Amino acid sequence: MEIVVLRLGHRPQRDKRVTTHIGLVARALGASGMLLTTEDKTVERSISDVTKRWGGDFFVQTGVKWREAVARWKREGGKVCHLTMYGENILDVIEEIRGCATNNRILVIVGAEKVPPEVYEVADWNIAVGNQPHSEIAALALFLDYLYQGKELRAKFRHAELEIVPKRAGKEVKRVQREHYPNSSYMKD
Amino acid sequence: MEIVVLRLGHRPQRDKRVTTHIGLVARALGASGMLLTTEDKTVERSISDVTKRWGGDFFVQTGVKWREAVARWKREGGKVCHLTMYGENILDVIEEIRGCATNNRILVIVGAEKVPPEVYEVADWNIAVGNQPHSEIAALALFLDYLYQGKELRAKFRHAELEIVPKRAGKEVKRVQREHYPNSSYMKD
Repeated sequence: MEIVVLRLGHRPQRDKRVTTHIGLVARALGASGMLLTTEDKTVERSISDVTKRWGGDFFVQTGVKWREAVARWKREGGKVCHLTMYGENILDVIEEIRGCATNNRILVIVGAEKVPPEVYEVADWNIAVGNQPHSEIAALALFLDYLYQGKELRAKFRHAELEIVPKRAGKEVKRVQREHYPNSSYMKD
Repeated sequence: MEIVVLRLGHRPQRDKRVTTHIGLVARALGASGMLLTTEDKTVERSISDVTKRWGGDFFVQTGVKWREAVARWKREGGKVCHLTMYGENILDVIEEIRGCATNNRILVIVGAEKVPPEVYEVADWNIAVGNQPHSEIAALALFLDYLYQGKELRAKFRHAELEIVPKRAGKEVKRVQREHYPNSSYMKD
């Protein structure tokens, strides 16, 4: 399965932190990359820094034209999921999505405040992670977790410099020997 | 089960949006309220506005002394969960927590950048929602979802003014007749 997140309507000054959180959640929970409709080197850099230290091949591409990106994605057989509080409850559609998504590719559209009505039309699914206002970061996290059924929470990232040793209390981070991780991007247990 | 979120280290200027997202996620996914260690009327107001329109009795209290709040919580028999990337994998501890939490109360500590070492000691569980850096908003959402096992995504909120009608495409919001919702705070299907 290949998951790419498309973040719409990012305003560099106002949304820098929220969009960075979206990118980090996408990376940590198993997506391959994030497309951003606005040019933003700060967000790109923050996320690349994390990837460099913590591993994987997560990509960030900014200044993307969303209509073109969505059209190309669909032309190549990929599916499009739009996360919105107005959509169908994730609990009602997740199995259908999982069924279609095996050996397939999903573009997950995550909007900021205003999303063009067209997005609701091009999406294969408009999905509400609860029909209450909350957070696009939370919605993305829950969507990915429901999609991967928790397996992503045990993911190991290849060619990481740092790795956490889970602890009941306190902190332990170890440096990883590069040789242990041969050439590949993202590996699940 | 009663869940309250304690947000540590909130800096009003920098963290306004992230902390607001935390509050909204807490409300939407079944917590009763949020305590904030810093005074911040803007965050209080944003979340109260949402509660007024979308229902429930979610409370926000700012300017709380965290040591006192935690001590009181424990004295009254409540459990404390601290969300941190350094902790034990949520998949390994969630059943234990669910077991202890039935008919019980959980204080969920969500830190900003620096968390005092003491927090790791007072917590009954230090829980990593994946041992990767990502987002405290995502961590809270996943924690609540694992705790409630998805039931919170079907929650109805009492005395709401507005309610979404889930749709395959487009948006539909209806005004709710107040009379339909007798006096109570938070109701699960």
